[in-house]
Amino acid sequence: MAAAPDEVEQSDAGPQRSGTDRLTAFSDGVFAIVITLLVLELRVPAYHEGELLGALLDEGASYLAFVVSFVYVGVIWLNHQALLRLVRATTLALSWINLGILFGAVIIPFPTAVLASALTHGDTDDRRTAVALYALSAALMSAPWLLFFGYLHRHPTLLDREVGPEHVRAQRLRPVTGLVLYALSGLLGWFVNPLLGLVGIIVMIVYHAVTSEGLRRRPRRRSAGRRR
Amino acid sequence: MAAAPDEVEQSDAGPQRSGTDRLTAFSDGVFAIVITLLVLELRVPAYHEGELLGALLDEGASYLAFVVSFVYVGVIWLNHQALLRLVRATTLALSWINLGILFGAVIIPFPTAVLASALTHGDTDDRRTAVALYALSAALMSAPWLLFFGYLHRHPTLLDREVGPEHVRAQRLRPVTGLVLYALSGLLGWFVNPLLGLVGIIVMIVYHAVTSEGLRRRPRRRSAGRRR
Amino acid sequence: MAAAPDEVEQSDAGPQRSGTDRLTAFSDGVFAIVITLLVLELRVPAYHEGELLGALLDEGASYLAFVVSFVYVGVIWLNHQALLRLVRATTLALSWINLGILFGAVIIPFPTAVLASALTHGDTDDRRTAVALYALSAALMSAPWLLFFGYLHRHPTLLDREVGPEHVRAQRLRPVTGLVLYALSGLLGWFVNPLLGLVGIIVMIVYHAVTSEGLRRRPRRRSAGRRR
Amino acid sequence: MAAAPDEVEQSDAGPQRSGTDRLTAFSDGVFAIVITLLVLELRVPAYHEGELLGALLDEGASYLAFVVSFVYVGVIWLNHQALLRLVRATTLALSWINLGILFGAVIIPFPTAVLASALTHGDTDDRRTAVALYALSAALMSAPWLLFFGYLHRHPTLLDREVGPEHVRAQRLRPVTGLVLYALSGLLGWFVNPLLGLVGIIVMIVYHAVTSEGLRRRPRRRSAGRRR
Repeated sequence: MAAAPDEVEQSDAGPQRSGTDRLTAFSDGVFAIVITLLVLELRVPAYHEGELLGALLDEGASYLAFVVSFVYVGVIWLNHQALLRLVRATTLALSWINLGILFGAVIIPFPTAVLASALTHGDTDDRRTAVALYALSAALMSAPWLLFFGYLHRHPTLLDREVGPEHVRAQRLRPVTGLVLYALSGLLGWFVNPLLGLVGIIVMIVYHAVTSEGLRRRPRRRSAGRRR
Repeated sequence: MAAAPDEVEQSDAGPQRSGTDRLTAFSDGVFAIVITLLVLELRVPAYHEGELLGALLDEGASYLAFVVSFVYVGVIWLNHQALLRLVRATTLALSWINLGILFGAVIIPFPTAVLASALTHGDTDDRRTAVALYALSAALMSAPWLLFFGYLHRHPTLLDREVGPEHVRAQRLRPVTGLVLYALSGLLGWFVNPLLGLVGIIVMIVYHAVTSEGLRRRPRRRSAGRRR
Repeated sequence: MAAAPDEVEQSDAGPQRSGTDRLTAFSDGVFAIVITLLVLELRVPAYHEGELLGALLDEGASYLAFVVSFVYVGVIWLNHQALLRLVRATTLALSWINLGILFGAVIIPFPTAVLASALTHGDTDDRRTAVALYALSAALMSAPWLLFFGYLHRHPTLLDREVGPEHVRAQRLRPVTGLVLYALSGLLGWFVNPLLGLVGIIVMIVYHAVTSEGLRRRPRRRSAGRRR
Repeated sequence: MAAAPDEVEQSDAGPQRSGTDRLTAFSDGVFAIVITLLVLELRVPAYHEGELLGALLDEGASYLAFVVSFVYVGVIWLNHQALLRLVRATTLALSWINLGILFGAVIIPFPTAVLASALTHGDTDDRRTAVALYALSAALMSAPWLLFFGYLHRHPTLLDREVGPEHVRAQRLRPVTGLVLYALSGLLGWFVNPLLGLVGIIVMIVYHAVTSEGLRRRPRRRSAGRRR
């Protein structure tokens, strides 16, 4: 976070660039806050004296929604960590795209709360709405990732020296998958069955969790020998 | 954040100076928290079983207020990043002026919530009040930026070696524009039409977004050749 | 938080590794937020004009729950600091185990709020529930620590050069103690007396506080002479 | 936040020491969160359609309480920055004393909310209670600062090389002043007049603001010539 390394050499033309220190610190801060704020949705339920246990058990679905969203934010954070490892400098445009990614993370507590409410207090229509809202948010969230990879592909000088453009192109597959499959989960939840849509969402989160180091990265790095 | 670089050479007289590491870390923390706290204003609306979708759609204006304020905090953060890139040391007075800037950011969730409430549940009088409050907050928020540039202008030894005093003087234009035009938006919203005032606010936020690297900076730096 | 040192040498086979900078920053952020969010549970009680003092005194038990949880998060943070000092690199799996540790910290405000509510407004049954929930959370929270030490034991190349595998093995004792004794406190609180269970919890927190630099660490280090 | 500098030479006996990087990062995080959470107390007041302006004006005293506490946390943060500049290493005991300082900061939103509520909705008795609570919190908050300076005085090897023990001894004056004068403000507010007590509190905050670089520090440093 020192001021000095927050600048990089600017020997070539193009938009003004700066280091990624504050971008990283700010993003980490946002992710840490979002993952912690989720717990604020877990409220002590209203209960009559002597009936706390029953009241807590009735909220079971809220806890499920909380755990799913905790894992989801964790996944996004790990993916973002791999993402910023690709770049060695940022521009104003890239910083805005990154704010788009953070926007996606920041709103998660809202569809989570809607989902928890619908699972606990709503009927099938409400669950349909809540699952579709969650899936829609998750699908839209993929868009800035796509923009990020596209921008890096067009500005290869921002890339870390170890990262090749073909690696960046390969990464685009994951947000595209996210965009399509979260949207499908939403349609499934809306037109077929909300629980089926919820299962689709959870499967996608697990997929992004296991691929969060980036696709097809290791082979290339292994062939490149030891790093730094 | 290491202790060592948090001090700078103090070979000349004047107020006691220290490095900007903790100032930066603290400011990033505040911005990250504010931008994330905004989502707490998005509450699950009260709804009757089966009517969640309608209840959510009724809150549409809240989502607009949320998005506007998210972008606004993002703009302030990017501007602040460019601001701290100008300086290499801080003093007690400059730290207090920076706290003034943070104060402006920290209060944003409040006029945002008032605006969301007035757009959703209020009449024209309430919207007038809410738009004027938002514009007033935004106008006052410009004041510490003006103080910051003024202080830097009077204490050039705090400036990064690459930054000339004429550059700092030029920067004063932007908070002055903000002060005047946000105030005008507020008057417009109060005396003419709240939605017109809201449009004025959004235009100003976009203006600050596209100029957030600082005015007239690039020409000077290009002529100065490669940096560091 | 600079990009450069966020990578470590990867001369040997095994899972892809990276530095612990962002892991540390993210974890610190989460702990700082949790310890601060606890205060949000301290709400101004509803009161009739002129009866604020009485209303505040009635909430006494909430303040106890707040203090216990503040100390508890402080303990976890100090233990986590000692934990990350053992490692010099992380893997995807270790990052997920660390997210498990953070999950345990993040949920603390919830059992705290339930405990405060039961102590203030509940009967003996409610207190039993609340103490058992708190103890259960605390017991489960020990599990990812156990996984962390187990993972380090199986991947000694992740260890800091000063740390021997036998030291890591010795550390496992503490989460095992936690798992068993928090569970016992919960059973005590549920079947015998809620206050007795609460005392058990407090004793355990104090135990983890005084051992938070890690068990049996100093002798080894002293014999190893000066460090770095 | 790199792992490497988070350790210091340990050539002498005594309790195990470690660097202050994570202590600083964690403390900054806590201060940033507290100063930002204060705004959550500013809620949109309940209002009938068309009466938003009047409802906002009725809350005027809440805004005063918010501003006072914002400045107060700012003061504590600046003082803490000066405090950590004195040390180059920490021990488990010093970390706990630091947690005591953070405890004092973390609770500020609670007496602030109580004060805002009493000023807006309470009678004289309620204001007396609220002012006394605020003053009591502020007085107790001084205690860990006293412990911090006392601990440093007994463990001079933890001090930054530039800082002499007599400087540390001189610093004790400020928390003692705080302890005594905040307590006096509380007594004044309780027995004489709540507003008089509030004035006392504000005077004290201003006193700590203007002395936040530490008492009698500059002369010594000037005589010591340029630093580092």
